[in-house]
Amino acid sequence: MRIVIAPDSFKGSLSAAEAAAAMAAGVRDVFGDTANIVQRPMADGGEGTLDVIASAWEVVPETMTTVDAIGRPIRARFGISTDGRRAIIEAAEANGLPHVSDVTLRPLRADTFGVGLIARKVLDRGATEILLCIGGSATTDGGTGLLTALGVRFLDAHGRNVAPGGEGLAAITSVDLSHLHARARLATWRIAVDVDNPLCGEQGAAATFGPQKGASPHDVGLLDAGLAHLAGILHDVVNAPVNAVADIQSLTGPGFGAAGGLPVCMVALLDAHMVQGSRLVVDAIGLAEAMAGATLVFTGEGSFDSQSLGGKVIDGVIAAASQDCPIIVIAGRVALSAAETRAAGVAGAFSIAPGPTDLARLVTTAAERVRETTAHVCGLLAARA
Amino acid sequence: MRIVIAPDSFKGSLSAAEAAAAMAAGVRDVFGDTANIVQRPMADGGEGTLDVIASAWEVVPETMTTVDAIGRPIRARFGISTDGRRAIIEAAEANGLPHVSDVTLRPLRADTFGVGLIARKVLDRGATEILLCIGGSATTDGGTGLLTALGVRFLDAHGRNVAPGGEGLAAITSVDLSHLHARARLATWRIAVDVDNPLCGEQGAAATFGPQKGASPHDVGLLDAGLAHLAGILHDVVNAPVNAVADIQSLTGPGFGAAGGLPVCMVALLDAHMVQGSRLVVDAIGLAEAMAGATLVFTGEGSFDSQSLGGKVIDGVIAAASQDCPIIVIAGRVALSAAETRAAGVAGAFSIAPGPTDLARLVTTAAERVRETTAHVCGLLAARA
Repeated sequence: MRIVIAPDSFKGSLSAAEAAAAMAAGVRDVFGDTANIVQRPMADGGEGTLDVIASAWEVVPETMTTVDAIGRPIRARFGISTDGRRAIIEAAEANGLPHVSDVTLRPLRADTFGVGLIARKVLDRGATEILLCIGGSATTDGGTGLLTALGVRFLDAHGRNVAPGGEGLAAITSVDLSHLHARARLATWRIAVDVDNPLCGEQGAAATFGPQKGASPHDVGLLDAGLAHLAGILHDVVNAPVNAVADIQSLTGPGFGAAGGLPVCMVALLDAHMVQGSRLVVDAIGLAEAMAGATLVFTGEGSFDSQSLGGKVIDGVIAAASQDCPIIVIAGRVALSAAETRAAGVAGAFSIAPGPTDLARLVTTAAERVRETTAHVCGLLAARA
Repeated sequence: MRIVIAPDSFKGSLSAAEAAAAMAAGVRDVFGDTANIVQRPMADGGEGTLDVIASAWEVVPETMTTVDAIGRPIRARFGISTDGRRAIIEAAEANGLPHVSDVTLRPLRADTFGVGLIARKVLDRGATEILLCIGGSATTDGGTGLLTALGVRFLDAHGRNVAPGGEGLAAITSVDLSHLHARARLATWRIAVDVDNPLCGEQGAAATFGPQKGASPHDVGLLDAGLAHLAGILHDVVNAPVNAVADIQSLTGPGFGAAGGLPVCMVALLDAHMVQGSRLVVDAIGLAEAMAGATLVFTGEGSFDSQSLGGKVIDGVIAAASQDCPIIVIAGRVALSAAETRAAGVAGAFSIAPGPTDLARLVTTAAERVRETTAHVCGLLAARA
């Protein structure tokens, strides 16, 4: 019996590695040494991706000082290979929502400048292959902050820098690339996105993710209009040699709504390529190979819901698994029906909640609950084996 | 594939029949018509037993007026065969805790007099074979109220009737049987008990169940002492011809702690026999026969905990199932570990909670959650089949 364990992190409680270890313990509780357990902690290109693929990619985590989404100094991790050529940046290390949860959220002000400081650092070190993991952000600035840190100037009708954050987007009339970091356009950028939302509209960055970043309905309107304006500016102002794909269609296609529209400037100005985060991680850690011939696969995450099937970890696991290998989801919350679960290619999904309980208690006991729930499932499988 | 579904009720949300129907729907969601589903709603001799075994025993439910645990008029159901000879009394129809939940609980006053009025009714109708289902009671009176309704007088040192309820027990110095209902000792009484607690002490009726009936620590002390005194009186006062088994040993053995010590007077004065409620129901509905050759068995209840294995429904299902048939528990709350669950002979236990949630919401959505959880489990089994 070969059991592959490939969970995402349980946000707020367990890292992917901790979740995998808890599941493995639950499997061993029932099957002991008869099970060949293969742990492959997963990530979707959002938080935790650096840790999950660092060893597979031979990059070493380092720490530097940058700023958070509202400009306060913060320590941030990034990964860079010993020869300096490959780098992994986890945007949320700088612009992550948790870093600004100690103050009233400022959805209009929050920007990606701190992410850009990390990007400048790895460019200075000579990186030519850069993976930018986004998601979990507090920002809705279309990536303007990041590009600003790399030397780009977003100017208003009077030639002045616009205000930082999503707030300033609507005032942009021109983009000055003359001070862009010399190596920025020589590097190959990949952006790992974890959602397929478009930039604007009802499913866009502002409408979908704005509220959780503190945006009021009025703010959402401003941010959505600002992002649309930015896309138009980039389309009109930026000329073909800068970025051949920078037409309004592609800029507003699926994925551009990730991390507050961060990909828009990256694709338009640095010719970045968007890749689905979970697929990238699946490739990086060799998950498909690990799952070949598996008896069953455990995966999971904090909340198993409709977002899980839109490019997140579980979606990646499903895509990489062979057809006849049952996939079992262990999750903090199971929001999909059994029918939706099966339609997605998952045999069954089980919440770690042992009964009525609140989130705080579930978070505190998550490791034990993941182990227990996995063991209950394995008990069932053992009885049927 | 033959799937037997034999749950208890989910207290406060689903009757056993409703729980069984929800599980059956979940099985059909996955297996459709390929599964031969056999529904056998269960009970443990407590609330719901009348409904569960009425058809198997050919008794017809009727309704009468009696009193609740604090003497207020109340309508109560009981079952009696058309020839009047067999009767089922569900004590909680009169002395049940829910009936008095509208007022401040009075653990010292509450008595079983209303149960006795039902007993008198079925004796008047000619019943000679009476099943008394207890459990779920608000009373801790050792059954004195019930016997009082049948004509027995519990007297103090001055020859006066003692106060009703557990309160009066300590003052009893003699028992006057001269006015006992003429047919009471001609009938065969079986008492279905759902716990194996002894009458007194740390595991006794007062200490274990008193608090949930409103008893303060001081009340628990009074009630425990009162029950011990009653047992002593019955041992000393009642002579051998009345009840050969009425020695202090048997009166305080396992099961006498059920329903506030209700069995004590019944066994001592009416030669009643205690039977384990769930085993009795298993026999009555032919569960063992239904489970023969089953592919798997679903059972469940509101809370799957250490009490579940002490004579409750799930314990009865486990005892009646064949060794190699996996038993799956679906429950509102799963309080046993996976290891404890497997040690008890259950393959796996799954809470219907989909994540952090409160009891009220879980109760409201119980039918849908039972169906969904069953379907997730069946999805797993289908994938492995």
